[in-house]
Amino acid sequence: MRIGVLGAGQLGRMLALAGYPLAKDFVFYDMSGSPSAGLGEVIIDRDGQYLDDFLSRVDRVTYEFEHLPVTIAEKLAEHTTVHPCPRALEVCQNREAEKTLFGRLGIPTPEWQVADSADTLKAAAEALGCPVVAKSITEGYDGKGQAVLKTPEEAETAWASIGHPRVIVEKFVNFRREVSIIAVRAEDGDVAFYPMAENTHHEGILRYSIAPAPGLEPHVQQDAEKYIKSLLNELNYVGVLTLELFETAEGLIANEMAPRVHNSGHWTIEGAMTSQFENHIRAVSGHALGNVQARGLSCMINIIGEHGDIERVLELPYTHVHLYNKSERPGRKLGHVNILADSYEELVWRVRNCVQFLPGSPEFKSTLTTEG
Amino acid sequence: MRIGVLGAGQLGRMLALAGYPLAKDFVFYDMSGSPSAGLGEVIIDRDGQYLDDFLSRVDRVTYEFEHLPVTIAEKLAEHTTVHPCPRALEVCQNREAEKTLFGRLGIPTPEWQVADSADTLKAAAEALGCPVVAKSITEGYDGKGQAVLKTPEEAETAWASIGHPRVIVEKFVNFRREVSIIAVRAEDGDVAFYPMAENTHHEGILRYSIAPAPGLEPHVQQDAEKYIKSLLNELNYVGVLTLELFETAEGLIANEMAPRVHNSGHWTIEGAMTSQFENHIRAVSGHALGNVQARGLSCMINIIGEHGDIERVLELPYTHVHLYNKSERPGRKLGHVNILADSYEELVWRVRNCVQFLPGSPEFKSTLTTEG
Repeated sequence: MRIGVLGAGQLGRMLALAGYPLAKDFVFYDMSGSPSAGLGEVIIDRDGQYLDDFLSRVDRVTYEFEHLPVTIAEKLAEHTTVHPCPRALEVCQNREAEKTLFGRLGIPTPEWQVADSADTLKAAAEALGCPVVAKSITEGYDGKGQAVLKTPEEAETAWASIGHPRVIVEKFVNFRREVSIIAVRAEDGDVAFYPMAENTHHEGILRYSIAPAPGLEPHVQQDAEKYIKSLLNELNYVGVLTLELFETAEGLIANEMAPRVHNSGHWTIEGAMTSQFENHIRAVSGHALGNVQARGLSCMINIIGEHGDIERVLELPYTHVHLYNKSERPGRKLGHVNILADSYEELVWRVRNCVQFLPGSPEFKSTLTTEG
Repeated sequence: MRIGVLGAGQLGRMLALAGYPLAKDFVFYDMSGSPSAGLGEVIIDRDGQYLDDFLSRVDRVTYEFEHLPVTIAEKLAEHTTVHPCPRALEVCQNREAEKTLFGRLGIPTPEWQVADSADTLKAAAEALGCPVVAKSITEGYDGKGQAVLKTPEEAETAWASIGHPRVIVEKFVNFRREVSIIAVRAEDGDVAFYPMAENTHHEGILRYSIAPAPGLEPHVQQDAEKYIKSLLNELNYVGVLTLELFETAEGLIANEMAPRVHNSGHWTIEGAMTSQFENHIRAVSGHALGNVQARGLSCMINIIGEHGDIERVLELPYTHVHLYNKSERPGRKLGHVNILADSYEELVWRVRNCVQFLPGSPEFKSTLTTEG
């Protein structure tokens, strides 16, 4: 079976690495002009001229990247099986649609309103109570188009800086930590949930994921499973879906979803019985799902901007290095290191030891270590 | 770094799958005309015309296959780093050289003699005491060129059937079981040893490997480590080396070595902290060696000839399926399944359960289960 992947970055690369052992081949469809998957066949198509060619070479289509025209996914779905369904893309590309769906399914979100002018933005900030964050409804590649308002008076400046005709305004959430749940749904409707991860961001980029999230109460995992299951079933979704959440004193609050394998699930390569990548390929190909149980405790450390002293990292007996074969550039995800341990104390020690060889890595703080 | 691999079968495929995450690229050099690696770049060269082309595209050379002309490896070694060294190839291609080296290094072997005629074969059989096995000194692709002599009188027929000018005659070994040790040596001379595996063959093909080998006395592992270490150091070897042995009441007896990753080490993909494939790539690339510790208990089951009901195998929560994307053919290695467990009892149960979906798999018997 030949799987067509929309996008050709590191997620596609890791999908392929997981898919070859299941006798799958890969064709990547790249619209960026700079594919980095580094294996499989790549069709570079900045102008959408070779979509028929792509289609003729593949048995099924999936994506590693959600910021592509929904019309492309829909056109492909007329001719072949596209997993996940284009509707999942559509929802993820529009924060208003996403939040509306969350609300309809009973998934808690921050309080939010929509604004379509500086005046309505100001009114929303007043109604919700500052601070609020305003985000353009649709998002481009760069994750820009966001502004924080400390007072309603900042609406004019915020509106101008965002520069979009429609924004969503969210009340700030007082959260204990950021977490995520990754689930996978098969063609026959079978669903499996990975243990949740605790995620640490710095300057808007994921830095660390610990899984299973330390000190997580079982009912929190159950709530997250309930939420993501309702999304999977509502969308008749096939493949891996990620839901990013805030853990608060009042329970979980959903932030956003990603219709694909996710950086906060990279720990599963060695840290779970079946990786998120293999499970996505299994689901998309119509196979049974693989076992999602954790194998010990894991921490994933992103390698951002610079590689650092990878030779030293390779010397450590508890590290698994995953490089994307990309050149260094500030803020760029170049790879990740998975660290395994049998206890959280050992995990923390190992992560701290490893991080000294990865320049630019922010101090490692988890809920565990700030509490401990 | 681009690694050139001589040979393009499933071993090369798995080397590449382990090497991409270390930012390596692969070029395979195939002399068979039917490469099956399925990823990386492949140069098909039945007549040795494109060796310079291969050389110009790679930074280092290794092999997944030892039945290639030593002169090719030597020619390559004049221009680039070739790991393991061509001398290792040379030794492995000649049973007399191999056994002589074993003897010189104090590695026990079956008693053996060389014969170069039907008469000397008969004399050797008489001197050693039947049964003996006669094998051509050099071996082709097919592993043929062997004959068992139950009496010295069978020498004439055996000689004719082997059809080689020189054979090695070995006394039969009364062994408890077949085992193997896999070790890896880095450029700086650092050496690491995997836990030994217990191997079950059927009709001359490896069927099962269990690792760590059940009930293995620590001194047996230590003996094997001593033997393989002496080979690694003698050959100034870099990369993974495999030594197949018989476990007998009097200790270990070496059968043969393979200068490469080995089927009896496929369990390491999920069953060890670092797979044999990754460790070979690390060594060949000049990196530090990875941790060779086992993660739980593993059994590798080869998929031979037919795939069987892979969908059912994928449903089992303790299986890891590795397919080589090859078409079915009697006796052909099509893939393998790695099974993990926390106890040997559980492992045996899981293997038996899995094997029912793999037609043609012989009954699963390990030392453990015949004793238990």
